[in-house]
Amino acid sequence: MLNFKFITRILGFLLVVEGLAMLIAALVATIYSGPDIKPLLLSTLITSGTGLIILALTRKARKEIGKREGFIIVTLVWVLFSFFGSLPFILSNSIPDLTNAFFETMSGFTTTGSSILNDIESLPHGILFWRSMTQWLGGMGIIVLSLAILPIFGIGGMQLFSAEVPGPVADKLSPRIQSTAKSLWQIYLLFTVLETIFLWIGGMTLFDAINHSFTTMATGGYSTKQASIAYWSSPFIEYVIIVFTIIAGMNFSISFLFLTGKFQKAVKDEELRYYLFFIAAFTLIIFAGLLVTTNLGIEQSFRDALFQVVTIISTTGYATVDYMHWIPFLTIVLFAVFFFGGSAGSTGGGLKIMRIVLLLKNSYYELRRLIHPNAIVPVRFNNKPVSEQIIINVLAFFMFYFVIFLVSSVLLMLVVPDLPSSMGAVATSLGNIGPGLGLYGPAENFSTLHPAGKWFLSFLMLIGRLELFTVLVLFSPAFWKK
Amino acid sequence: MLNFKFITRILGFLLVVEGLAMLIAALVATIYSGPDIKPLLLSTLITSGTGLIILALTRKARKEIGKREGFIIVTLVWVLFSFFGSLPFILSNSIPDLTNAFFETMSGFTTTGSSILNDIESLPHGILFWRSMTQWLGGMGIIVLSLAILPIFGIGGMQLFSAEVPGPVADKLSPRIQSTAKSLWQIYLLFTVLETIFLWIGGMTLFDAINHSFTTMATGGYSTKQASIAYWSSPFIEYVIIVFTIIAGMNFSISFLFLTGKFQKAVKDEELRYYLFFIAAFTLIIFAGLLVTTNLGIEQSFRDALFQVVTIISTTGYATVDYMHWIPFLTIVLFAVFFFGGSAGSTGGGLKIMRIVLLLKNSYYELRRLIHPNAIVPVRFNNKPVSEQIIINVLAFFMFYFVIFLVSSVLLMLVVPDLPSSMGAVATSLGNIGPGLGLYGPAENFSTLHPAGKWFLSFLMLIGRLELFTVLVLFSPAFWKK
Repeated sequence: MLNFKFITRILGFLLVVEGLAMLIAALVATIYSGPDIKPLLLSTLITSGTGLIILALTRKARKEIGKREGFIIVTLVWVLFSFFGSLPFILSNSIPDLTNAFFETMSGFTTTGSSILNDIESLPHGILFWRSMTQWLGGMGIIVLSLAILPIFGIGGMQLFSAEVPGPVADKLSPRIQSTAKSLWQIYLLFTVLETIFLWIGGMTLFDAINHSFTTMATGGYSTKQASIAYWSSPFIEYVIIVFTIIAGMNFSISFLFLTGKFQKAVKDEELRYYLFFIAAFTLIIFAGLLVTTNLGIEQSFRDALFQVVTIISTTGYATVDYMHWIPFLTIVLFAVFFFGGSAGSTGGGLKIMRIVLLLKNSYYELRRLIHPNAIVPVRFNNKPVSEQIIINVLAFFMFYFVIFLVSSVLLMLVVPDLPSSMGAVATSLGNIGPGLGLYGPAENFSTLHPAGKWFLSFLMLIGRLELFTVLVLFSPAFWKK
Repeated sequence: MLNFKFITRILGFLLVVEGLAMLIAALVATIYSGPDIKPLLLSTLITSGTGLIILALTRKARKEIGKREGFIIVTLVWVLFSFFGSLPFILSNSIPDLTNAFFETMSGFTTTGSSILNDIESLPHGILFWRSMTQWLGGMGIIVLSLAILPIFGIGGMQLFSAEVPGPVADKLSPRIQSTAKSLWQIYLLFTVLETIFLWIGGMTLFDAINHSFTTMATGGYSTKQASIAYWSSPFIEYVIIVFTIIAGMNFSISFLFLTGKFQKAVKDEELRYYLFFIAAFTLIIFAGLLVTTNLGIEQSFRDALFQVVTIISTTGYATVDYMHWIPFLTIVLFAVFFFGGSAGSTGGGLKIMRIVLLLKNSYYELRRLIHPNAIVPVRFNNKPVSEQIIINVLAFFMFYFVIFLVSSVLLMLVVPDLPSSMGAVATSLGNIGPGLGLYGPAENFSTLHPAGKWFLSFLMLIGRLELFTVLVLFSPAFWKK
C-alpha cells in the first residue's frame, strides 16, 4: 500500500517553502514599489496557505516512504510547483492565460528557459525576480535530486557518481543525504554570489546581475531582457557568463573537490575531461566555420562560437547571436550539441556527458567483442569496472531519449508546420535547453505555438528534467501492482 | 596472420559469378537487339576475366578462414561488385560518370533503390535488366549472409534466429550452411516466379514483370519506369506488389515454414506478428489522415496508405504517390516508418522488427527493474530467455544506428541546404529504402546531389546493408592487432 498520506504531507511542506520563496519576490517588488506587490503576496498566501492546511490535515501520517513514494513525490513536486508558481504571473496579469503561465513556470522549474514572453522588459521587477527564482530553485532541486536522492533509486546509472551514498534503499532521508545536500547548497550559493559580483562589475545593474546569476547557475537561461545577453554587447559580461556556465554544467561534487583544494583528484575525473574536450572540439569547428563564412574577425568569431557551444552543451540557452543566421551546416553542428547536455550531478539536462562517455566506451568494447567473444572485459569508468546492468540502463536511457525525441517530433507536427521547428522544439524541451530551431530559434519564442503544443512541451521538459525513468515508471503497470 | 590469399581467391571466384550474371543481361540485350550487347559482353569479359586471373594466381591458398577473414570478405564483396557492376552502365554510356554509376550500382547491390537517373525509359533493355539484377543478387546475398553466415559471427543478435546454426565459430563454410543457403535460394526463386506471373497477368509486359519481381523480392525498388509503379495506374498490380513486398519483408525461414505446411509454428513467430501489427497500425493512421485531408475516397486512401507503409517498412521504396504532397504530419509519420525496416532474415534493411521488439521489451523490463531491482527476469523472445549480452548488442546496434544517422545528417548538410532533405537522404541510405524527403522525395532523384554526397551515401548504404558492425569492426584497432 502506498503511503499517500505522507506523500501529501511532504508536498504540503514543500508548498509552504514555495510560498516563502514568493515572499522574497514580494520583498523585491516592495523595493521597486511595483504593481506586483499585491499579486505576489496573494500568491504567497494561497501557496503557503494550501501547504499549511495540508500539514494540519496529515499530522498523523506514518513517516515511512519507500522507492515508489519517492518517484511519485519527485514528479508531483515539479508539477505542483509549476501550477502554484504560475499564480504570480496570472494574478499580476503579466501572463494572464493559464497555458502560457504554466509553460513559463514549468520552463522555469525545469531550468529549460523556453519563454512565451514577447516583451520581457515590461514585466515588473518582482515578477521578473520570481521568474529567475523558479530556475534557481529548480536547479538546486535537481542537484539534490541527482546527487543525493536518485542514486539511492539507482536511476540512470547515477549510482556511479556517488560512491559515498549507501547502496541499499533507505526508508527515510538519511542524515548523510541531508549533509550532502547542505554542502551542495552552499557551493551553489557561493557561485551565485561570485557571479553576481562579476556581472555587477561588468556593468549590469545589481538586479540584472542577481537574476542572471540565478539563471546561469541553474543552467536555466531566463534573462531580464528580450534580447538576452546580446542586450549588453559586452565581451566582459559574455566571458564571465561563459566561465560560470561551464562551472554550472560540471558535476557539483567535482566543484566541491576543487573548492576544498583536492585539485589532483578533481582534474582526473573522466567526465570533466570529456566535458571540456567536447566544448573545445565543437567550439573549434564553429569558430573555424564562422571565420570562413563571416566577417566577424577572430575574437568575435571565437567568442560567439564558445558562448553558443557552452550555453547549449550546459543546456542554459542564453543568446548572444541568432545561430539561425549561420550557414545551415554550422546551425546543425550546434544542433548536435543539443543532445550532449551537462555533466551528471550538474544543473544541466540532456543525455549528460557521463552517459555519452559510457556509450562511446561500450561501443568500442562491442566491436572488440565481435572479434574476441570469449574475452570478457568490462567497460571501465574512472578506473572502476562498470556492471552490465548499468550499461544496459545507460543504453536503455539513450534509447528512451531518442525514441521519445523522434515520436514527439512526429506528434508535434500536428501543430507545427515544418520538421526542423518541430525537432528543435522537442530537443530543446527534452534537453531543458531553451531556444530551438526555425520558428522557435533564439531570436523567436514559443508564444505562437498552439496551446496543445505548449502542454506537450511542458510534459517533455518534466520528463527530460527528471531523467525520464522517474516519470515514465509511473506509467508502467508494474508500478501500481501490489 | 590474416589469410589474405584465400580472401583474394574467394573474391576472385565471386567476380567470375558476377561476370556470368552480366552474361545473362547480355542475353536479354540480344533478344531486344539493343545497343548494349557489346558493352555487356565487354563487362562480362573484364569481370569474369579478372576473377579467373585471380583464381589462377591464388591456387595454392590455404583453405582456412576465420571470423576476421569473414568480415573482410563480406565488406569487400559489396564494394568490388559495385565497382565491377558499374561497368555496363559506363561502357554503354547509360551512366558515363563513375560517381553516378557507382552510386547506382551500390544502391542496387545493397537493395536500396535510390537512383540518379532522370530518364529511365531511355536505357536499353539489357542495361535495365542488369540494374534490376544487381538488386536481386544483392537480396539473395543478404539472405544467405543474415541467415547462414552472420549468426556464426554473432552479429546484431542474429543468432536468435537460427537455432539450427551451430554456435561455435566454424573455420570453413559447413555443409549445413550450404544446404540452408540452397533452400533459401529456392524459396527466393519461387516467389520471384510467382510474382512475375501475377504481374504479367496484371498487364505488365513479361520484361517489366520480371524486373519488378526481381526488385520486389529484394526489397530494392528499382523500376523500369521513371514514374515507378504509378506508371500503370493499376490497383491490381499495386495489390500484387503489396502482397509480395510484405512477403519479402518477412523472415525467409518463416516463409519456409509456411511453404512446408508448418502454419501453426509460423504464425506463432513473434517477429511476424509485430511486423504485421506495425504495418496495420501505420496504415490505419495514414489511411485516416488521407481520408480526412484528401478527396481520394476510401479505397484509394487505403491503398495509397498501405502501399507506402509496406514499401517503406520493407525498405523497398517503390512509389505510387508523392508523399511529400501529403500534409506534413502524415509525411513525417511515414518518415518514422523509415526506422523500422523488415524482419531479420528478410531482404529488408533498417533497424529490423526483431531488434525493435527486443528494445520495446527491454524498455518495459528496465522500468520494472527500477521498482524491483533484485528480481532478475530476463527478456523473453519467442518464449526463450534472451541473454544480457544480446540485449547489450541490440541496444548498442540501436545506438550506433542513431548516432550514425545524426552525425551523417549533420555532415551531409555541407552539401545539402536543408535539414529534412539531409535527414531523409541519410535515413533512406542507411535503411536501404530508396526515396527520401524534400529534394530527394519520391518524385525526385539523387542526380542533383554533390559527388561527395553520392560517395558518402554509397558508404552509408554499405554499412546499413551489412548490419553496421560487419563494416565498422574493420575500423577498430582491435581488429588489426595480432
